[in-house]
Amino acid sequence: MTAADDARHMAHALALGRRGMGRAWPNPAVGCVIVTGGRVVGRGWTQLGGRPHAETEALAQAGSAARGATAYVTLEPCAHHGQTPPCAEALIAAGVARVVAAVEDRDDRVSGAGFAMLRAAGVAVETGVLSAQAEEDHAGFFQRTTEGRPWLTLKLATSYDGRIATATGESRWITGPEARAAVHGMRARHDAVLVGGGTARADDPSLTVRGWGDVPQPVRVVAARLLDLPSDGQLARTAGDVPVWLCHGPDAPGPARAGWTGRGARLLECPLAGRQLDPRAVMAALGAAGLTRVFCEGGGMLAASLLSAGLVDEVIGFTAGLALGAEGQPSLGPLGVDRLDEAPRFALVETRAAGRDVMHRWRKA
Amino acid sequence: MTAADDARHMAHALALGRRGMGRAWPNPAVGCVIVTGGRVVGRGWTQLGGRPHAETEALAQAGSAARGATAYVTLEPCAHHGQTPPCAEALIAAGVARVVAAVEDRDDRVSGAGFAMLRAAGVAVETGVLSAQAEEDHAGFFQRTTEGRPWLTLKLATSYDGRIATATGESRWITGPEARAAVHGMRARHDAVLVGGGTARADDPSLTVRGWGDVPQPVRVVAARLLDLPSDGQLARTAGDVPVWLCHGPDAPGPARAGWTGRGARLLECPLAGRQLDPRAVMAALGAAGLTRVFCEGGGMLAASLLSAGLVDEVIGFTAGLALGAEGQPSLGPLGVDRLDEAPRFALVETRAAGRDVMHRWRKA
Repeated sequence: MTAADDARHMAHALALGRRGMGRAWPNPAVGCVIVTGGRVVGRGWTQLGGRPHAETEALAQAGSAARGATAYVTLEPCAHHGQTPPCAEALIAAGVARVVAAVEDRDDRVSGAGFAMLRAAGVAVETGVLSAQAEEDHAGFFQRTTEGRPWLTLKLATSYDGRIATATGESRWITGPEARAAVHGMRARHDAVLVGGGTARADDPSLTVRGWGDVPQPVRVVAARLLDLPSDGQLARTAGDVPVWLCHGPDAPGPARAGWTGRGARLLECPLAGRQLDPRAVMAALGAAGLTRVFCEGGGMLAASLLSAGLVDEVIGFTAGLALGAEGQPSLGPLGVDRLDEAPRFALVETRAAGRDVMHRWRKA
Repeated sequence: MTAADDARHMAHALALGRRGMGRAWPNPAVGCVIVTGGRVVGRGWTQLGGRPHAETEALAQAGSAARGATAYVTLEPCAHHGQTPPCAEALIAAGVARVVAAVEDRDDRVSGAGFAMLRAAGVAVETGVLSAQAEEDHAGFFQRTTEGRPWLTLKLATSYDGRIATATGESRWITGPEARAAVHGMRARHDAVLVGGGTARADDPSLTVRGWGDVPQPVRVVAARLLDLPSDGQLARTAGDVPVWLCHGPDAPGPARAGWTGRGARLLECPLAGRQLDPRAVMAALGAAGLTRVFCEGGGMLAASLLSAGLVDEVIGFTAGLALGAEGQPSLGPLGVDRLDEAPRFALVETRAAGRDVMHRWRKA
């Protein structure tokens, strides 16, 4: 195998792994390709809910062809006995001769132990192949592992003067169909969609993935301190079909709690910071509940609170070719920024046209 | 000559013509290439202030080699005796055998007459080669000819939530050095830079082109109803070196008028519309004064007034990767837009990274 072969097969494994994105949580969305004599004999990715693991899937496909083969995995194989036996053990048992991993795991139960287990069994181990891409794909899983909170993507779809609705509240649609379709695709690649209570009340959104076929739906999360959400809205009506999680404050009234629990919603109580939910506590609660990637779609108050707390890892902006003027509703609430050097800053990742709109993507600087 | 040869030479002529952009006004920025036996024997473009014309320059270079040659011009050659003899006559006199023009002129004194004069003298005439690009390059000249007002480009450089300054007014710098350098290049390709009085007072800008070598400077125009601009600011201090034109209302006090005239500024009195300068009258005054391309850099009130009046032909946005929040200063003042279908709309032309920022360009939809 040349380095170019290794990179090609790892790119394949990464592409497979991404199929599990938004679905594998609380586990990482890993991809695995088993290659022998230049031929791919097994392909796998982490399945819905995190099991089976990618290696299990690929080994099952490869069968006896795994003997003497190379396994490409986008993350260090696990070494601990959880609900399934460790993947490192399975690779050894199948007679895999060489394991190429993109990156080492950050999970204390795995970190280095998977590689050690393989090496001890005489399996050749290599790592660092396409590691930058793998770091990006596993960023949510790693962040949850190391910091206890999921990766947070903030979406802002605005007029070119940064407004998300007219003065009278009209917001459908500022961006065009291509941008909206792209947003649905982004929802599908996140474990959960998050909005604030104001947006849930004003827009009555369904927050589901539409137009991408029969895909698993992300969890719908609303941050609503008092649980004051319409009991006959889209979220209420569909909470039994697609998960609804509600982050609320200690002061949320009992009847509202009971009502939402009755509708099938999961309640996550979070402490307050001032008069709002503590954004750090909200993200910690979502991490504790297993989420690795969260897609926040506003509104302006929640977005501002997450930005101010330094919790936004990625910003995806859609800028439409229309002006709404100073009376329009701002995309972000107050940030308390007086000087430019206090402003939350992000580094540009990419920009491109999305139909009639501009898409731009930024990462925490 | 094949069609491909014609297109190649016309592209050359267009590139030359663009050298006069922002400098040739009130004339069009035309380019001309004279080709004989596949060899370029003359190149010219409209010079500073509009004279000599591109054809005159190219013919002078070609000398006797023009006999039997093909002349590529980005606009129909003029046919009327102005301050110089008509270019159609000069091409005939030089013995040019064929003239290829990108587009017909819109000027009543020329429109079709240049071509007719050439054909009457036995010169082969062709038109419509790279006409779309030529229409774009001459859009300001054509618009002034047909509607009496210059092409208006609006620049907005904002945080990604559409703010142009913090609550305390800090605005230097929201965008990075590459974006700012691009803006200076854009200024240089316009006849004039336009700002509102509020911006002139708050930022004390010089509005000159810097960092692009020893280039002709665009006219600096300020729309200031009462001429209440700092008498010791950058514009006041340099009005004798680089033109300053002030659009003011009928109610501008006499002493302010005298002061600014004394400093070398040119005063253009415009009627009011309500309490503001009538934006249509301002643009008409600039057109009457000879401008074909104007680059407006705000502020928000002037930009909103120009947008509301439908006077903005192109929007160039720079979006920076920082958030300023709802307290920040909006890029556009009130537009009175209640419903989305009332919003001024623009069609995306291009988007790309400009250093650390996103550049996006839109045309009136």
